[in-house]
Amino acid sequence: MIFLRDNTLLERPLRFEDIKPRLLGHWGTCPGLILLHAHLSLLIRNHDLDMIYVIGPGHGAPAALACLWLERSLENFYPGEYGVNREGLGRLIARFAVPGGFPSHINAETPGAIHEGGELGYALAVSFGAVMDKPDVIVACVVGDGEAETGATAAAWHAHKFIDPRESGAVLPILHVNGFKISERTIFGTMDDKELVALFSGYGWLVCIVDDLEHIDEQLYSALEWALAEIHTIQQAAREEKPILKPRWPMIVLKTPKGWTGPKEIDGKILEGSFTSHQVPLPKANSDKAHLTALQEWLSSYRIHELLDPEGHPVPIVAHILPQNETKRLGRLRLTHESYTPLNEVPWHPFSFPKGADASSMKAVGNYLDAVFQANPHTIRLFSPDELESNKLSSILTHTGRNFQWDEHSFAKDGRVIEVLSEHLCQGFMEGYTLTGRTGIFPSYEAFLGIVSTMVVQYGKFVKIAKQGGGGSRRTRWRGDLHSLNYIETSTWTRQEHNGFSHQNPGFVGTVLSMKAEFARVYFPPDANTFLYTLHHCLESNNLVNLLIGSKHPAPTYLSPEEASLHCSRGAGIFYFASSPGDVVPNIVLVGIGTELTFEVIAAASLLHTLVPHLRIRVVNVVDLMRLSAEGSHSHSLTLGEFEELFTADKPVLFNYHGYVSDLQALLFGRREGVGRMWVRGYREEGSTTTPFEMMVVNGVSRFDVVKWAIKRGVEGGVLGEGEGGRVLNQIERKEQSVRGFIREHGKDPDDMYDMPKFE
Amino acid sequence: MIFLRDNTLLERPLRFEDIKPRLLGHWGTCPGLILLHAHLSLLIRNHDLDMIYVIGPGHGAPAALACLWLERSLENFYPGEYGVNREGLGRLIARFAVPGGFPSHINAETPGAIHEGGELGYALAVSFGAVMDKPDVIVACVVGDGEAETGATAAAWHAHKFIDPRESGAVLPILHVNGFKISERTIFGTMDDKELVALFSGYGWLVCIVDDLEHIDEQLYSALEWALAEIHTIQQAAREEKPILKPRWPMIVLKTPKGWTGPKEIDGKILEGSFTSHQVPLPKANSDKAHLTALQEWLSSYRIHELLDPEGHPVPIVAHILPQNETKRLGRLRLTHESYTPLNEVPWHPFSFPKGADASSMKAVGNYLDAVFQANPHTIRLFSPDELESNKLSSILTHTGRNFQWDEHSFAKDGRVIEVLSEHLCQGFMEGYTLTGRTGIFPSYEAFLGIVSTMVVQYGKFVKIAKQGGGGSRRTRWRGDLHSLNYIETSTWTRQEHNGFSHQNPGFVGTVLSMKAEFARVYFPPDANTFLYTLHHCLESNNLVNLLIGSKHPAPTYLSPEEASLHCSRGAGIFYFASSPGDVVPNIVLVGIGTELTFEVIAAASLLHTLVPHLRIRVVNVVDLMRLSAEGSHSHSLTLGEFEELFTADKPVLFNYHGYVSDLQALLFGRREGVGRMWVRGYREEGSTTTPFEMMVVNGVSRFDVVKWAIKRGVEGGVLGEGEGGRVLNQIERKEQSVRGFIREHGKDPDDMYDMPKFE
Repeated sequence: MIFLRDNTLLERPLRFEDIKPRLLGHWGTCPGLILLHAHLSLLIRNHDLDMIYVIGPGHGAPAALACLWLERSLENFYPGEYGVNREGLGRLIARFAVPGGFPSHINAETPGAIHEGGELGYALAVSFGAVMDKPDVIVACVVGDGEAETGATAAAWHAHKFIDPRESGAVLPILHVNGFKISERTIFGTMDDKELVALFSGYGWLVCIVDDLEHIDEQLYSALEWALAEIHTIQQAAREEKPILKPRWPMIVLKTPKGWTGPKEIDGKILEGSFTSHQVPLPKANSDKAHLTALQEWLSSYRIHELLDPEGHPVPIVAHILPQNETKRLGRLRLTHESYTPLNEVPWHPFSFPKGADASSMKAVGNYLDAVFQANPHTIRLFSPDELESNKLSSILTHTGRNFQWDEHSFAKDGRVIEVLSEHLCQGFMEGYTLTGRTGIFPSYEAFLGIVSTMVVQYGKFVKIAKQGGGGSRRTRWRGDLHSLNYIETSTWTRQEHNGFSHQNPGFVGTVLSMKAEFARVYFPPDANTFLYTLHHCLESNNLVNLLIGSKHPAPTYLSPEEASLHCSRGAGIFYFASSPGDVVPNIVLVGIGTELTFEVIAAASLLHTLVPHLRIRVVNVVDLMRLSAEGSHSHSLTLGEFEELFTADKPVLFNYHGYVSDLQALLFGRREGVGRMWVRGYREEGSTTTPFEMMVVNGVSRFDVVKWAIKRGVEGGVLGEGEGGRVLNQIERKEQSVRGFIREHGKDPDDMYDMPKFE
Repeated sequence: MIFLRDNTLLERPLRFEDIKPRLLGHWGTCPGLILLHAHLSLLIRNHDLDMIYVIGPGHGAPAALACLWLERSLENFYPGEYGVNREGLGRLIARFAVPGGFPSHINAETPGAIHEGGELGYALAVSFGAVMDKPDVIVACVVGDGEAETGATAAAWHAHKFIDPRESGAVLPILHVNGFKISERTIFGTMDDKELVALFSGYGWLVCIVDDLEHIDEQLYSALEWALAEIHTIQQAAREEKPILKPRWPMIVLKTPKGWTGPKEIDGKILEGSFTSHQVPLPKANSDKAHLTALQEWLSSYRIHELLDPEGHPVPIVAHILPQNETKRLGRLRLTHESYTPLNEVPWHPFSFPKGADASSMKAVGNYLDAVFQANPHTIRLFSPDELESNKLSSILTHTGRNFQWDEHSFAKDGRVIEVLSEHLCQGFMEGYTLTGRTGIFPSYEAFLGIVSTMVVQYGKFVKIAKQGGGGSRRTRWRGDLHSLNYIETSTWTRQEHNGFSHQNPGFVGTVLSMKAEFARVYFPPDANTFLYTLHHCLESNNLVNLLIGSKHPAPTYLSPEEASLHCSRGAGIFYFASSPGDVVPNIVLVGIGTELTFEVIAAASLLHTLVPHLRIRVVNVVDLMRLSAEGSHSHSLTLGEFEELFTADKPVLFNYHGYVSDLQALLFGRREGVGRMWVRGYREEGSTTTPFEMMVVNGVSRFDVVKWAIKRGVEGGVLGEGEGGRVLNQIERKEQSVRGFIREHGKDPDDMYDMPKFE
């Protein structure tokens, strides 16, 4: 697949013209992956298993695709293209890694795959997520010794401690040690057996090493049978209510040479068993006679004519190892491609608050999710990096618990909640859970979701290809819809005044904004009711990445449940209660985005109404950030007419925004000439352990900053006289100094600072 | 420190007025941290060690600050403020975690600290970086059992395998198991001793468990003496040229209850030994009599009057454990705060290429760094996630090697290069190395630097406070300058055609752009000479985060070394060779940013000169992205005059940009009304395993896209007639179809696709 574009059955001696012009692909990992595909298939056949094969070394796509061709999975999903015959094989080989063919890495086009084969480190965590609440499923997960060096993988070896063998399936990890990365030895390749066994025993595994190259088939298959028996023992005990304390799940360490069975050497360089076989072992096969000869010898060594008949059909002994039930073959398990299970809907209104009530959005969310979990006991889970309590979400635990098996005191081993201090694990679990048809929620401190930003981007790539196909004829319509990934950011920088600077980072918004617009949503519901509406909406959505950002602290409820519905369904709207009275064209527009930032805008409006009642103000709140993107660039973006209805056609607009100003500047860039009348304020990387209000001040987004901006615009626009403007600015300056003086003196904000301002 | 604002020596019974209005801080981890500070101090005293104390649980700032006060380090760096007397102690306590005082987390204001105490996971990797090339230094690194769950930490336990005991110092990890995170048991807290010893033995450590609470002092100090002896044995053997193969470095597992010595319970909830003691154990101490009484009892139990005299001076027995040599105390080691060692400069001109030559920027970088390493054998290192070879940087290895101790075949154990497939480790190593005065370089695939984006943001916070102080009087002038962090991104999406979609992610640019402008630099040198100039410039800089993005593939050298110097020092400039002849006002401006994107602009210009010679074109290249930021927002930003000199005052401008368009849109937003005439094209999350040119096409940034844009603007501007424009668009459409047809047929780009276009 890496080399040939013709003569794929070696029916005549290879010529340069048979070789692709660009040799792309990765050989080194392939022999081990194929060996495993074959043995796992036999295991499935012999035990009628529901098995998924997650391949960490996703650059080994040739191995996966070859086996999927042989087992007819490619033919099933791409009928007429990749039939198990001479023509189908020729097409698979010739079109691999060329424009229009399968890409060089496993992706959503690969049947059976639930993991993007790009960035390394996440295969194991994804595998664990996939078996949760699926008691009959086993994921065989191969982890390369390169990938094993990553932190995400190093943490994931603990993940069996979150698997309740009664309610969930099992992961069988296979650490594939071939000794080399791209150009260097691996850490695991230099560890001896004692070190390996000690390490993985310490993690809690029962380790079997498979390394006898002379008898690799017997040894590997025996190891798989052993592992299966161990898994069944653990599961059976738990399911008969006699659970084993700290069960030691089996794992396999498979040691085979990198590029095994490939050419031994070329141009004086060792290939087999060396990093030089990582990618294309004979890079000059299309121009150098020696390379071509070596290729001919290598490929001939597989004696393809003994395995396929002249028509390209496998001989019986090859087909014999495949599961008889085709839907159990590794490329065919329905769980890997069927549509998700929609949630039983739970209305949000019963959890809402009356207008005017002080309410914490996160407490509301906790109560609501408690009900959602009760209504959906096996299809939704929450993954949290040890922040449930401090994010005020703990009422989620009213009817469920934390699912941690290693804690003998735990009373709720089958709880819906996993808390582990690794964002990578939380994200990997959620991906695996979602890609097998269920729903995940990931609440987090705002500052620390960025830890998984590249994982989210990788996941987004998988979903994009799953939904849009990879171009050419390889449409992926056979993949069903997925539930969305749902992130809740709270404990944001605006209320990190007790942790301070290190806990301030709203950068994850930018990650979501840079994804394909079709799949990305960012919401800033300003109060509990709007948050509940938005969460309910997200739990009804699919194929998206939903990011919701809100407060855990009590804050005013601006809108009744009915008003909240209308406001959120529009995504943005005028807060008439805080705007100048009457339906008139304003002089200036003040926009709040985010709970605290909106509150400051409202407080500023209140000050302005008192100080300069003749300055006509409109207050706007934006919930759905995508509304601001350039017309036509996102399905949610406001048309020019809608935009001007909210923000006027020509008046100065101040956006008081929760995140980095660059997020909003990029969105608003699409408004072209209009940019000249827009100002954006937002988080500017300032702060410390101080009071909540001081955090607003040092980032230039406090009510006083808003008022000052408004007065300046009022003067510029001729609504206020120069003298009047100056006087008001002085008043505001004094007011601000007095507040800051109080804070310095008393070490806290004035008590009335966050009372809801009164409006006439 | 968490509670009191007055009566800090308990000279009278506590009253509500003695308590702070806002109780902020973290108690649970503090007892263990203080215990360690004391014992490490005694160890230093007894052995005259150069020791750094890296504290993973950085929210334990009260513990660190209390000890640093006692050992006079606070007094040394903040003279007159935190003297070791009654007044200084009162100030330290009263001002902790209130506006203007020390924040609640360890940061650059904390003497001796080389690690921001926020995001968890990196303490261990930072510690290893700090001891590299410092044979006499030992870092005692405490890792909490919460932090130990993170992937970054789980990977870092392997890091001793990159420490050559001959040339480098040692890290003594102390895993502090107190059993609980914020609200849940920890994984490590539920592992028994056999599991712990197995796990860490597998990693290669020699483990000592300290857990006898009755005799904790004797046991802990003995363990430290044992560890020191083990370290010396390993180091001595290596330094006498009899190195121990796979030396087993010592580590300590310290088990003490969370919140040890604190209140036992309150309101029926257990405190000591539970997660409830994580933060503020008596949250109503300023309003509830029972809480206040419990506080009184708790604080009294330490019998402060036996430890300090009435003037607040420690009694002799307390002072006795401190190192006699004050500059060896944990807050004082010069390595933790002195200015960095500048590099011996290596001129870049000898490595440059003649104008017109085809050259790979990365090969040029490799040759140059080889010389830099020779000139600086102990003060610069390169950290790479296994991509040196595939990024074409391998000539760096000409005179040095990879420093991997576990490989018995390694012939260059003291090499300047560390390759480990963990971006977290690379980043942590580089941070520790840089924060102790040396220079690090981190080359990476573009797509995978984002893995450490939040780490870079955390590091940036440390540097910001180090350079600007934390506000109030706590200036940090005592911290010297640091070398910059230097990132080289290559194998970018534009040339990921063989890996495809999963390897495409230019998002790290956005991370750097969102940092404080004072510390952030992003460069896109378009050819080898400009890359060399820029790298040389970065290696002369300090306190910055430098991001350089370029190509590993051969590409035309547009500028002579002299021209490259001038162009780069200006940061942006007109490419006259590709622009319409004569120094006239152009009709349109085409801007290239990034190697391949600039090439497409140049190719487009060449096509346009032939097709529509009367359309006057200016070609501009931007090297220094910060030049485009709003006037005044960055020290590098162009003034309005400079901006218009390059981009005209009113002509249409197309930016053909390497990264996400949002990066540039946000920068250009600051040009206000001017935005209306600017178009930004860039990476739009499309691609697969295909040809390099196809990658340009699917992202809308190919030469043909540029030409089409130019023709449309030419027609709009009246320079081209409608009919003429239509004809040319048709021509271009046919040309594009023919190229794409060739690609589909031959599986490669036409051979002349990347030949330098001819200009008259």
